Amino acid sequence: MSIRIGILGYGNLGRGVECAVRQNDDMELKCVFTRRDPSAVSILTSDAAVYSSNDILDHKDEIDVLIICGGSATDLPEMTPKYAADFNVIDSFDTHAKIPEHFAKVDSAAKNGGHIAMISVGWDPGMFSLNRAYANAILPNGKDYTFWGKGVSQGHSDAIRRIDGVQDARQYTIPVEAAVEAVRSGKNPELTTREKHTRECFVVAKEGADKAKIEKEIVTMPNYFADYDTTVHFISQEELDRDHKGIPHGGMVIRSGVTGWNNETKHVIEYKLNLESNPEFTSSVLIAYARAAYRMNKEGMSGCKTVFDVAPAYLLNMSGEDMRAHLL
Amino acid sequence: MSIRIGILGYGNLGRGVECAVRQNDDMELKCVFTRRDPSAVSILTSDAAVYSSNDILDHKDEIDVLIICGGSATDLPEMTPKYAADFNVIDSFDTHAKIPEHFAKVDSAAKNGGHIAMISVGWDPGMFSLNRAYANAILPNGKDYTFWGKGVSQGHSDAIRRIDGVQDARQYTIPVEAAVEAVRSGKNPELTTREKHTRECFVVAKEGADKAKIEKEIVTMPNYFADYDTTVHFISQEELDRDHKGIPHGGMVIRSGVTGWNNETKHVIEYKLNLESNPEFTSSVLIAYARAAYRMNKEGMSGCKTVFDVAPAYLLNMSGEDMRAHLL
Repeated sequence: MSIRIGILGYGNLGRGVECAVRQNDDMELKCVFTRRDPSAVSILTSDAAVYSSNDILDHKDEIDVLIICGGSATDLPEMTPKYAADFNVIDSFDTHAKIPEHFAKVDSAAKNGGHIAMISVGWDPGMFSLNRAYANAILPNGKDYTFWGKGVSQGHSDAIRRIDGVQDARQYTIPVEAAVEAVRSGKNPELTTREKHTRECFVVAKEGADKAKIEKEIVTMPNYFADYDTTVHFISQEELDRDHKGIPHGGMVIRSGVTGWNNETKHVIEYKLNLESNPEFTSSVLIAYARAAYRMNKEGMSGCKTVFDVAPAYLLNMSGEDMRAHLL
Repeated sequence: MSIRIGILGYGNLGRGVECAVRQNDDMELKCVFTRRDPSAVSILTSDAAVYSSNDILDHKDEIDVLIICGGSATDLPEMTPKYAADFNVIDSFDTHAKIPEHFAKVDSAAKNGGHIAMISVGWDPGMFSLNRAYANAILPNGKDYTFWGKGVSQGHSDAIRRIDGVQDARQYTIPVEAAVEAVRSGKNPELTTREKHTRECFVVAKEGADKAKIEKEIVTMPNYFADYDTTVHFISQEELDRDHKGIPHGGMVIRSGVTGWNNETKHVIEYKLNLESNPEFTSSVLIAYARAAYRMNKEGMSGCKTVFDVAPAYLLNMSGEDMRAHLL
């Protein structure tokens, strides 16, 4: 019997989940829940239904795992605890500083409902976190580095779009190659924010806007750009649409550490992602953890879980025998 | 209370485990068991004992986890099932083709004894296996590549040493950069054995030996060298001792796969190790899994386990709260 998946929220991430479900033989998409008018939402899967999110509880028994595809700022803090009472749920909550608070709320809801709620699933948090954890376990005496990019930061692109005179914008975060190489060499450098990443912005100015003023507002913007070396390119809307419509991302988690009786031996562990689509990759991780949530709940487990709590065997549509024979 | 560690076998790997225990505050080395005369074995840890492996059962209650540091060819197939009945054990069994058979024997012994036996722990099998598993779970539609090196292959070095006229030798396995780059680009190339790795040999010939004959015997040796482009350098024993005494290793696991409704989006996941000492890194992995074995057994679990069966949280000397706050 297939694992029956429901999607709450049908944006880039929700569509990515829909595509990911299609690649997994042991799963089927049953329905999409939307806050919009369901008749206005057209999905790719011909045999799945679209319902209003207001009616979600009516469909409680039709799905095994609900993938909550909302934003971390306001959607997930409210939605995940709410739905964890009635469904096994997965979210991609990525406000690192607020994870402990989110965990506590979700945990009590999930335990009360006897469900598994897997939070902060994706690549950072998610696969990057896992790699930090494994590398710290193996090399307790070492230092972690995380680099992001080259990739599109939606938050930074949005920040530029809010500037007066800006029509559209796309911002790329780019790791500084010299910093990455210093880390890979095992030198354990101390790196400032500016030394780790640069920011490159492609901006479409409105007709007659003051470009010099826009550029100055971008490069001096606190938190977003002031601490970085930022380059601004003004281009046309056509160029932006033609050359910058993708949402690639990626990055590296590197831990460099020492072993030996006198810490005389160096080792470097690196995990690297090169993703043509950030939301499609994130969705693929969500779906693997949906399988785990379903199985762990079947075994009687409940409560809030993160990637740290999931044995890798739960993620694969493969028997233990096959894993040992083919992947070990 | 510390996790009390015992080491069986005090070679490179055993010494590595001893060093790794020292880096972990929650562990202490209680004793080393050796097949040699214990009085002839001198260890680094001043407050640990050295016993004959014949007396190992007398010390059953003094240790929580026994790390079996033996060879995969003959030691581990016999030792791990034998000791899994009386101890929580960890081994680094690395004969990939025989893992299913080893698993079955160890599983029944460990279950009978109520212990955890963690097999095939290290980096390949081990961390590389984990990365194959995670990447397969995330990108079911893709292709795996494993590259080894640059690093010393003990098996290949030994094979050269067995040739008539050879006094000493060191063999390096080296990934072909062009192949690695083709894989990283997401091209999913089909690669032959020869296209993936080259082999470089540093050989000390005995006085008066026929070097041309030795070289020919090396490069044409079936299984070991015949399928590779192999380079042979004759050097002096002094040069070998000076420039090639380390046992570095490493490599990469890369999975390249596609997502999207029509498989139109490419992603590349890469895990890379650069290790100055193969046995010291392997030992560090063994020790992290020793912590997991101890904890899983305390929770009532028993039987044979692999890295696939262990939730990452068991590996770290850190609370769930701290992990979520600092690593997620």
